[in-house]
Amino acid sequence: MAEEEFSNTTHEGFNVTLHTTLAVTTKLVRPSPAKPILPVQTGQQAQQEEQSSGMTIFFSLLVLAICIILVHLLIRYRLHFLPESVAVVSLGILMGAVIKIIEFKKLANWKEEEMFRPNMFFLLLLPPIIFESGYSLHKGNFFQNIGSITLFAVFGTAISAFVVGGGIYFLGQGFFFCVCVFVFFILQADVISKLNMTDSFAFGSLISAVDPVATIAIFNALHVDPVLNMLVFGESILNDAVSIVLTNTAEGLTRKNMSDVSGWQTFLQALGYFLKMFFGSAALGTLTGLISALVLKHIDLRKTPSLEFGMMIIFAYLPYGLAEGISLSGIMAILFSGIVMSHYTHHNLSPVTQILMQQTLRTVAFLCETCVFAFLGLSIFSFPHKFEISFVIWCIVLVLFGRAVNIFPLSYLLNFFRDHKITPKMMFIMWFSGLRGAIPYALSLHLDLEPMEKRQLIGTTTISIVLFTILLLGGSTMPLIRFADIKDARARRRNKKDVNLSKTEKMGNTVESEHLSELTEEEYEAHYVRRQDLKGFLWLDAKYLNPFFTRRLTQEDLHHGRIQMKTLTNKWYEEVRQGPSGSEDDEQELL
Amino acid sequence: MAEEEFSNTTHEGFNVTLHTTLAVTTKLVRPSPAKPILPVQTGQQAQQEEQSSGMTIFFSLLVLAICIILVHLLIRYRLHFLPESVAVVSLGILMGAVIKIIEFKKLANWKEEEMFRPNMFFLLLLPPIIFESGYSLHKGNFFQNIGSITLFAVFGTAISAFVVGGGIYFLGQGFFFCVCVFVFFILQADVISKLNMTDSFAFGSLISAVDPVATIAIFNALHVDPVLNMLVFGESILNDAVSIVLTNTAEGLTRKNMSDVSGWQTFLQALGYFLKMFFGSAALGTLTGLISALVLKHIDLRKTPSLEFGMMIIFAYLPYGLAEGISLSGIMAILFSGIVMSHYTHHNLSPVTQILMQQTLRTVAFLCETCVFAFLGLSIFSFPHKFEISFVIWCIVLVLFGRAVNIFPLSYLLNFFRDHKITPKMMFIMWFSGLRGAIPYALSLHLDLEPMEKRQLIGTTTISIVLFTILLLGGSTMPLIRFADIKDARARRRNKKDVNLSKTEKMGNTVESEHLSELTEEEYEAHYVRRQDLKGFLWLDAKYLNPFFTRRLTQEDLHHGRIQMKTLTNKWYEEVRQGPSGSEDDEQELL
Repeated sequence: MAEEEFSNTTHEGFNVTLHTTLAVTTKLVRPSPAKPILPVQTGQQAQQEEQSSGMTIFFSLLVLAICIILVHLLIRYRLHFLPESVAVVSLGILMGAVIKIIEFKKLANWKEEEMFRPNMFFLLLLPPIIFESGYSLHKGNFFQNIGSITLFAVFGTAISAFVVGGGIYFLGQGFFFCVCVFVFFILQADVISKLNMTDSFAFGSLISAVDPVATIAIFNALHVDPVLNMLVFGESILNDAVSIVLTNTAEGLTRKNMSDVSGWQTFLQALGYFLKMFFGSAALGTLTGLISALVLKHIDLRKTPSLEFGMMIIFAYLPYGLAEGISLSGIMAILFSGIVMSHYTHHNLSPVTQILMQQTLRTVAFLCETCVFAFLGLSIFSFPHKFEISFVIWCIVLVLFGRAVNIFPLSYLLNFFRDHKITPKMMFIMWFSGLRGAIPYALSLHLDLEPMEKRQLIGTTTISIVLFTILLLGGSTMPLIRFADIKDARARRRNKKDVNLSKTEKMGNTVESEHLSELTEEEYEAHYVRRQDLKGFLWLDAKYLNPFFTRRLTQEDLHHGRIQMKTLTNKWYEEVRQGPSGSEDDEQELL
Repeated sequence: MAEEEFSNTTHEGFNVTLHTTLAVTTKLVRPSPAKPILPVQTGQQAQQEEQSSGMTIFFSLLVLAICIILVHLLIRYRLHFLPESVAVVSLGILMGAVIKIIEFKKLANWKEEEMFRPNMFFLLLLPPIIFESGYSLHKGNFFQNIGSITLFAVFGTAISAFVVGGGIYFLGQGFFFCVCVFVFFILQADVISKLNMTDSFAFGSLISAVDPVATIAIFNALHVDPVLNMLVFGESILNDAVSIVLTNTAEGLTRKNMSDVSGWQTFLQALGYFLKMFFGSAALGTLTGLISALVLKHIDLRKTPSLEFGMMIIFAYLPYGLAEGISLSGIMAILFSGIVMSHYTHHNLSPVTQILMQQTLRTVAFLCETCVFAFLGLSIFSFPHKFEISFVIWCIVLVLFGRAVNIFPLSYLLNFFRDHKITPKMMFIMWFSGLRGAIPYALSLHLDLEPMEKRQLIGTTTISIVLFTILLLGGSTMPLIRFADIKDARARRRNKKDVNLSKTEKMGNTVESEHLSELTEEEYEAHYVRRQDLKGFLWLDAKYLNPFFTRRLTQEDLHHGRIQMKTLTNKWYEEVRQGPSGSEDDEQELL
C-alpha cells in the first residue's frame, strides 16, 4: 500500500497536494525558475497553499503538544524505565496508523508527514540539538578527556563505518560467501542488494551515528563512573558530526565520479577531504566562539538583556551559515562553537541571560528532538518502503558487529593509558547503548542515490535499524540494569535512587547546577591549588585563554547582578502573594 | 539601474542565482511539481544551493549583529532623540548602497536582499512581533479602554483606508479635478496612474497600518497621560491586524472578480467578509488562549520548566496555523491569543518560565523588527522600482489627510464619553505619530496585482511613504517635543527625565515591572475594594473568569517559587564570586 501511494505521487494531480503541503513550513514555494522574481500566483492557488500550510503547521504543533503531555505523564507517574525517545516514537507510530486509517477511509488527505523534509531537519531541527549538546558539554571533565573522546568519536566511528560499509559491499558482491559459515544458518550471500563502494560506505557512515539522547539517558540511569559517562556522552555527540562528515565524504566521492578510480588513491582523496572538513569546520566553529567571547566581553550589553540574548542567538547560528557557505560542515562548526561559547562566552553574560540561554536552548532542543522522534514514528506509514528482510538482518548484524569492533579494541587500547580502567562490564554496556536515532534517518533521506529503488531500500533499512535499536535496545535497558544490579551488589548499594531514564526531568530542572555553580568552594581549591600540576591545554586555558576571553567581575557587577536577581524574585513574590485574581482562598488542584 | 536589474532577473540564466539564493532560509526549494516526491537533484546543483544559502544566512545574521551593536551604541551614548527604527533603516540604506557598489564593480553577486520575501515575513517575522504586542498589552488599562481602542482601531483604520483608497481611485479617474483647486498648485488630476477600485482600496488599507514600534517610542518620550498612551498603543497594535484583514478583504474581492458588481452589493459583501475575518479570527485566538490557560492550570508542568516553556511556545504559534488553515486571519488570531495568554495563562506559569517568556518574546520580537527595518532599508537599492513622483506625493497627502480624518473626528466624538478629554495638542501628536512601518511594506509585496508595472508602482510608493514617515516624521519627533515643551511650561516641569526614544532600553530591562508586579498593595486595594463598582467585562473577569482560568497559589507553591528563584541567585553569585578563571583581580573594562 505504501508503495502504491508513492507511485501515485509521481502523477501530476496528486503532486499538487504534496507541493502545496510542502509550502508548509515556509510558504517559500517558488514558481519554477523561468518565472519572474516577484511571486506571481493565481489568487486561488496562493490561498489553497496558505490554507494547506496552515493546517500542517497546526497539526505538527498539535503532535508536539501531545508529545509534551506524554513526556509529562512519564515523569509524573514515574515511568522512569521507559526512555522518552521510545515513548515518543511509539506515539508517532500510533498516530501514523490512525492517519493511515483515516486516509484509507478517505476521511481526509493530510500529508503532514511530508513536513519532515531532510533539508528542514538539517537546517532547522539539527542545529539547536547539536548546539545544545556542545553548550552542555561544559559540565564535567570534557577537556580532560578530550583525547579518549576524540579516539572513540573519530576512529571508532570510522571503524564502524568501514565494517558496515565494507560488509555490505562485499556481501553485495558475494565475496563473503565463504566467511558466512560462522553464521549458524548459511545465507546465500548474494541475496542482498548490490551497492557500489561509495554508496556502501555512505550507508556505513550514516548508520554509525550514535544518538546522544538515548545514550546519555541510559548512562545517567546506570550511575556509572562520571568520567566514563562524560567519555561516552562526548563520544556520542562528536560522533554525530563525524558521521555526517564521513557521509558527505562518501557522497562527495560519488559526485566527483571517482568511484572508478579505486584503491589507495580514492582512499587518500577521501581521507584528505575528511580531514579538511573535520579540522576546517572545527577551527571555524572555535574561531566564531572565541570572537563571540571577545565581543560580549568588550561590548557591555549586560544592561539590556534583550540585546545580549539576541547577540547570543545570532552567534549560535552564525558558524552554521558560514561553514555551509564555504563548503564545510555546519554541524561540526556549530558543535565546536557551542563548546567554546559555553566555556568562555557564557561567563561574560549577565545572570539573567545565562539562565535564559540554558533554558531556551534546552527547551528548543527538546522540541526539536521530540519533533524528530515523532516524525520518525510517523514515517513508518508514510515512507515509500522497499523492505528486503535479508538486507535488514545483515545490516543489523553488521551494525552490532561494527560497534563491537569499535568499542572493545579501543577500550582495551585506552586501558593502557588510563588510570581509570574500563571494565568488561562497562564495555558491554557501552556496546549495548549504541542506539541509532534521528541523524541516520535524516542522512538517509538526504543521500542522493540514483535509482529510486536504492533510495527506498536505504531509507527503509535505516528506519528499521533505528527502530530496532531504539525500541529493542532502548526498551530493554531496564531489564539490563536489573540484571547488572543483581550481579553487582556494590552497584545496588550505591543505587539508592530511582532509576530514571527521563532526560527531561533530569535536565529540565530550573538550572543545570553543574554549569552555574561549576566551581564550588572545594572544587575550586582542589582545581587551582594544584595549578602547577595542570598540563597542556588545561594549563594554557587557566593561565592565558580564560583571562583573555572572559570577563573579571567587579564588585559593582556582582552587586548589580545580585540586585537584578533579587528584584526579579521580589517582584514575582509580591505579585503572587496577592494572587492574580485577588481571591485569597488556597485551593490546591490536582491533575 | 534597478529596473534593468529586474528585467535581467526574468532571464533564465540570472534566475539560477535567485533561485538558489532563495534556498536560503529553508533549503526547501523543491523541484518542479512534476518530479517525484524525493528530491532528486544533481549533486553539483545541491551543493551550490547549500553554499549559496549558507552565505545568505551568514550575511543576514551579520547584518542583524551590526544592527544590535548600533542600537547598543545609541543607548550607550544616549542618542535618545533618534528612534531605533530610523537608525536601523538608515543603516540598511547605507549597506544597500555599499552592496550596490560592490555589485556594480562585479566584486560579488550577493542577492541577499532576496531574503526578505513577503511570505517569510508573514510566516516567520510577523507572528512573534504581533504576539509580543498582545502579550505586553497586559500592562496598563487595556481592558478598561477597550471601547475607545476598538473605535480607533476598527473605524479609524477603515476611515483612513477609505479616504486613501477612494482618493486614489477618483484621482485616477480624474473625477477629483474640480476638488483639487484647494491644493495650491493645480495638478493635472489624471496624471496619476489608474487603479481599479479593489486595488485602490487594497492599497488604502495596507497603507493605513500604523507602526506600533515607532509610535510607542514617541508616546513614551512625551510623557503623555498613561491612559492616552495605552489608547494609542492599543490602537496601533489592533490596527495592524485590522489593516491586514482589510487588505485581504480587498484582495478577496479581486480574486472573486467581483469588482464589476459595483455599488452596495460589493460593499456589503466586503463588509460581511471583513466581519467574518475579524470576529472569527478574534474568537479563535481567544479560544486558543483560554484553552492554553486551562491546560497549564490543570497539567502541572511547573516542575519541568522546559516542558512548560515548550508548551507556551507551541500555544503561541498554534492559533496562527489553525486560523490560516481555515481561511481566517492568523495575525488577528495570534494577537488575541497573546492578549488572553498574557491575562490568564501567564499567571499559571512557574516564575522561571514567566521570566523566560517575557525575555525570549522580547528578544525574538526585537530581532524580527530589526530584521524587517534593516531589509526595508536594503530594499531601496534592490527593489525593481517604478517611481511616479506625482503618485507618491498625492499618496502622502492622502495618507496624512486620512489619518487626520481618522484622529480628529473620532477624538472629538470620544470626548463626549470620556472623563479624560483629549486635548487638541494631543490630537495633533496622535496625528503626527502615525508612522508607517514594516507591515505596509510586506503587505504591498504580498499583493498579487496583475500587470507587473502596477506591482512595482505600489511597491515603490509604499516604500517611499514608509521611509517618508519613518525618517521625516520619526526624525523630527525631537524638535516637536522641544517645541511642545516650550509652549507648555507644565510639561517641561514634569519632563525632568531625559527624553528617550529607545524602545529597547525602555523595554529591555530585566523584567517589565508592570507585568510582574501588576497589582501592588495600593493598586490592589484600590482595585478590589471598590469591586462593587466594576462594570461589564471587568466585573465578569474578576468574579468568574479569573478564578476559573488562573491558578490560585498555595503556600507551598509560593515557597517553592521563592526557593527556586533564590537558588538561582545563590548559584550565580557563588560562581561569579570565584570568577570563571579563578583570578581575583578586579579589572574593569570599558568599550
